[in-house]
Amino acid sequence: MNISIILYTLGRVLAIESAFMVLPGIVALIYQENNWWTYFVVALIGMLAGLLISLKKPKNTQFFAKEGFASVGLAWLLISMTGALPPFISREIPNYIDAVFEMSSGFTTTGATILTDVEAVSHATLFWRSFSHWIGGMGIFVFLLAVMPMVGGVNMHLLRAESPGPVVGKLVPKMKDSSQILYFIYIFLTVVQILSLWIMGMSFFEAVCTSFATAGTGGFGVYNSSIANFSTLIKWDVTIFMILYGINFNVYFLILARKFKNIFKIEEVRTYLIVIVVSVLIITLNIFKMYDSFGGALTDAAFQVASIITTTGFATCDFNLWPSLAKTILVILMITGACAGSTGGGLKFSRVLILIKAVRQEINSFIHPRSVKALGMDDRTVDKAVVKSVCVYGALFTLIYLGSVFIVSIDKYDMVTNFTAVLATMNNVGPGLEVVGATGNYAGFNYLSKIVFIFDMLAGRLELYPILLLFVPMMWKKH
Amino acid sequence: MNISIILYTLGRVLAIESAFMVLPGIVALIYQENNWWTYFVVALIGMLAGLLISLKKPKNTQFFAKEGFASVGLAWLLISMTGALPPFISREIPNYIDAVFEMSSGFTTTGATILTDVEAVSHATLFWRSFSHWIGGMGIFVFLLAVMPMVGGVNMHLLRAESPGPVVGKLVPKMKDSSQILYFIYIFLTVVQILSLWIMGMSFFEAVCTSFATAGTGGFGVYNSSIANFSTLIKWDVTIFMILYGINFNVYFLILARKFKNIFKIEEVRTYLIVIVVSVLIITLNIFKMYDSFGGALTDAAFQVASIITTTGFATCDFNLWPSLAKTILVILMITGACAGSTGGGLKFSRVLILIKAVRQEINSFIHPRSVKALGMDDRTVDKAVVKSVCVYGALFTLIYLGSVFIVSIDKYDMVTNFTAVLATMNNVGPGLEVVGATGNYAGFNYLSKIVFIFDMLAGRLELYPILLLFVPMMWKKH
Repeated sequence: MNISIILYTLGRVLAIESAFMVLPGIVALIYQENNWWTYFVVALIGMLAGLLISLKKPKNTQFFAKEGFASVGLAWLLISMTGALPPFISREIPNYIDAVFEMSSGFTTTGATILTDVEAVSHATLFWRSFSHWIGGMGIFVFLLAVMPMVGGVNMHLLRAESPGPVVGKLVPKMKDSSQILYFIYIFLTVVQILSLWIMGMSFFEAVCTSFATAGTGGFGVYNSSIANFSTLIKWDVTIFMILYGINFNVYFLILARKFKNIFKIEEVRTYLIVIVVSVLIITLNIFKMYDSFGGALTDAAFQVASIITTTGFATCDFNLWPSLAKTILVILMITGACAGSTGGGLKFSRVLILIKAVRQEINSFIHPRSVKALGMDDRTVDKAVVKSVCVYGALFTLIYLGSVFIVSIDKYDMVTNFTAVLATMNNVGPGLEVVGATGNYAGFNYLSKIVFIFDMLAGRLELYPILLLFVPMMWKKH
Repeated sequence: MNISIILYTLGRVLAIESAFMVLPGIVALIYQENNWWTYFVVALIGMLAGLLISLKKPKNTQFFAKEGFASVGLAWLLISMTGALPPFISREIPNYIDAVFEMSSGFTTTGATILTDVEAVSHATLFWRSFSHWIGGMGIFVFLLAVMPMVGGVNMHLLRAESPGPVVGKLVPKMKDSSQILYFIYIFLTVVQILSLWIMGMSFFEAVCTSFATAGTGGFGVYNSSIANFSTLIKWDVTIFMILYGINFNVYFLILARKFKNIFKIEEVRTYLIVIVVSVLIITLNIFKMYDSFGGALTDAAFQVASIITTTGFATCDFNLWPSLAKTILVILMITGACAGSTGGGLKFSRVLILIKAVRQEINSFIHPRSVKALGMDDRTVDKAVVKSVCVYGALFTLIYLGSVFIVSIDKYDMVTNFTAVLATMNNVGPGLEVVGATGNYAGFNYLSKIVFIFDMLAGRLELYPILLLFVPMMWKKH
């Protein structure tokens, strides 16, 4: 393991994150909140420390997959632990584990909170939570590489370790260009949403925070009631933007490149949109009797489906009260998640599709033992190694999931709470059911459970390996 | 598809099952119950029909994997639907779907019941339910081949489609000999348990029914309280026999062949035993405060762990009332199930081990990209095709599981009931949690849900493909 280059990488990440922390400091000054200094002090010390660490370029520039995984895993742990300092120092979140939980939840775009009263928190911290969604949604390394690319093979390995989805397709030959295009799309969509929400009646602060949380498919809100008390128009605006951020960003790249025909060929996106429409229809019919009008039921159904399938986690109602069918659909959508290459979490639709195709291939092999059909997606053959990776990913996911549920069940809550809380953190959704439902929070869990959730949120966002490998002793051996 | 040889096979199965139905008829005569004629009439008609159908040997003896799957799938559906006739005709189970549910549950060794009062049922039907566990545990084709082997490659394909576990190891070169050895072990263990339970104080009828249900890891009891009201000694007898039937039968073959050293090399069996011990210890500590004595807690913990891990489903207490940790362990054991090559259901420990090893291999490949280590188990290399099959099996299992939960959630019950009911039927456990807990039953579900459960029980017992393929139109095309 090449430790020096990992340190160098971490230094840069720390410097960038600390620079970002100036923004919530400014928000505090605007709203004349007395915790302004916590953000500036941490920002200053962080920037100095980060620059000092990454001042000297390492001599050994060997950078392979394992260095990529280790850098990404440690970097995300680092930004969560550093980002937790300001609200911890100002006693807004008096316990450090709670603060780390909150910021891991922010950066991993989970949106699970330990705050029992969001409205009591300062504007600065509300902004920082939402902004962490925005940073985490696209990835800290995508940003880093967009502004200052690194040497040799470093870029590819870092991006691969941080990107969501089974296959990383390069948009354009150069990684730096890819990162810049991605950020351009991301910023463009965010600005459009901020303006639209502002016009529709949100305050500018609300619009910015809500848009950041939508963009990262995070889900931290600025009110205890999440989005419930806003107008129907605003609910639909957020619904549509959540769905847009759950789409594979290749689609926007194809739009930019004016290759419109190719968009409809992407099976993953097609399936994702069909599943959304079908789920909304079934849930609307299922919850209809609880509402005065069809429109009201449709609005809530669409919002909740979009929020859960994209793993955002906003809510406009308490879906704990819905019938089993509607809740079961939401739980299934929590598992599938959104598209690969989007800001959403979960297993990703492309993985689900590959698994279904692998099953079909196996069945085929029983009926026609001598025919060998390759597994295809979007007119291309999926490599056997990818199919195996996806299967192993599914197995590892299940193992970590059950292991986490086991530890969390030592705590005091019921099974629905435990099973959905782990699912909601691992897949970066945020709310689960019962105690951790749309109107609940994670405050009541003991510290062991919270540490498990922090692990699960990071593991889920980084697709398991970067975090898991940190705990494999063999990783740290010198060759 | 070679329809004629499938019909021929089905005829033989029908004849054998009908012959077995004479036994409950005799039980009815002994206890002077007036439903005796239902068993004799169905037995007579079934034997005649079966012999007629299989009278003429088919000219075309082509028999491949797909014919094997189709024969096994249809045969199990046939024995469930025929076996359901006597209790349906005598109005003991007035609804035919309920009767088919009960007998599918019997033959698949699930032990889930739609009976709200088991004690109101005739001795004949109680015997028939328990006996169906005994037949289903070893498999109807294993029996068929032990008494009258068929032509050519038929045997292998039938056994492969019916046997539990990822790889079918032949015990001895000839299939007929394998089947006979397996049945010898099976009968020997059953007789020992009947005698031991009888000596310990059960009536002969109770001992026979309980032993049949233990042998098949089924779980139908003859009392509403299952095993709860029997002595501690009897509880431990059943516990130990359940664990013995959950072990890969290769172990007993090795004992017969006096190859004692090889037994401890079987990783699956070692893991299975370790998991039992650890689970019993944790649950005992977890439920200790609910009991007067350590012994009482240990007895109940050991019984329930053995019952759930082997997917038997007997109970000595209502584990619905246990804390979340204990219940979560039971749910996890419901998923893993017992050893391959045993009479137990579930995913099987060998599959779980292969999945864990595949994950370890993947992690290794990140750390040492150039080293290629084969996946080994029990000193042998596991073929890549087997690893892939296991992964695909896991994916298919999850898809069917979630699809079933989705349909069942249209019904009126809570999520814990639905999620555990589908798990308990698919993995042939029997009881789940809440409504379908140890003291509950499946009577209250609607017919759609019950049909889903019948499908899940058969799919689970036959390891998905034989039942699933029946619904693939391509299967039935003429080449």
